[in-house]
Amino acid sequence: MILDQSYHHSAILRLGRSGIGRGRPDIVHLCLLLALGSPLNSDNQLNCFVHTRDDHIITMDPRARLPRNTDRFTALIEQLYQASAVPSSGPPLMKLRKESLKDLLRRISPDSVVALTMLGSPRPMEAVAAGLGTAKRPVLIVGGFPVGHFSDQTMNLAPGTFRIDRRKLEAWTVVGRAIYDYEKTVGTERF
Amino acid sequence: MILDQSYHHSAILRLGRSGIGRGRPDIVHLCLLLALGSPLNSDNQLNCFVHTRDDHIITMDPRARLPRNTDRFTALIEQLYQASAVPSSGPPLMKLRKESLKDLLRRISPDSVVALTMLGSPRPMEAVAAGLGTAKRPVLIVGGFPVGHFSDQTMNLAPGTFRIDRRKLEAWTVVGRAIYDYEKTVGTERF
Repeated sequence: MILDQSYHHSAILRLGRSGIGRGRPDIVHLCLLLALGSPLNSDNQLNCFVHTRDDHIITMDPRARLPRNTDRFTALIEQLYQASAVPSSGPPLMKLRKESLKDLLRRISPDSVVALTMLGSPRPMEAVAAGLGTAKRPVLIVGGFPVGHFSDQTMNLAPGTFRIDRRKLEAWTVVGRAIYDYEKTVGTERF
Repeated sequence: MILDQSYHHSAILRLGRSGIGRGRPDIVHLCLLLALGSPLNSDNQLNCFVHTRDDHIITMDPRARLPRNTDRFTALIEQLYQASAVPSSGPPLMKLRKESLKDLLRRISPDSVVALTMLGSPRPMEAVAAGLGTAKRPVLIVGGFPVGHFSDQTMNLAPGTFRIDRRKLEAWTVVGRAIYDYEKTVGTERF
């Protein structure tokens, strides 16, 4: 799963207290808490990446346990920009490198790429998940921004673009539902 | 949905920086963000309550928009303990009153009460949701604590107790999945 923060928005962005000029760590935080706490991730079947506004890729170790507090997570991201890895010694739980979304996709070579956006064609999430479930290395891209849409570059990288609700759902809600439906599709064992 | 914080735990509780002695606002925060952002809530089909460790009930207005930052949410809870309502003037988005879980249940008079706990019998969440979907006024109780289990009092209030995964899922994951499955059961319109 890739959480993309490089969005197109014509108005001026109000980042507020939680903005650090590189995106919205509060949104990323909530999405990652849901993703990393999922049974899919416990079973080592999920890889999470964050594509930042300034074209960096954050790679998450599936075993990373994130702080529950927004400000402490934001401090981790700031630390990551200084040291490129957190923790700075020992096996890193988060890594940062300069990389575009296009280069990331080339590196992980998925056989299916789907982006969820209000501009996509309507399709229930379980149907989107069923499609992803037929691929060997599927990638789902979710927008991690408060307003606006994927940039044209991102849209061009995803052959499939869907919206899963007429309402504009929050990014973490989308992440939670996508992973749950995907687990049901691939038959993640619960008991 | 009731988020219960009055748990039984035999060891000494380490509350950490985010604890305010009345529970774990970070856990409540994440659960409420997911619940209030759900299509079910948008459709006015969800009521959220928090039962605190010191036997207060927080009633959420479905239209409440919570801050995304943990510390700002915690500050709201502290304000709530001082003024019993937030905001203190105008229609309240959060209300607090001294009330036990038992008295809350008597007041809202559900025709079905289910609690999710690792001590319950195994049942997939969609099966639990299907059961709730047959009731007119169902209540789902989710534990909002980091360790431990529901108190005996809580367990006695819920005729049905289930666990939805062999793994110990985080409270917000449970909330997100429960609401999503319930939406599917009652046929919440997406498009």
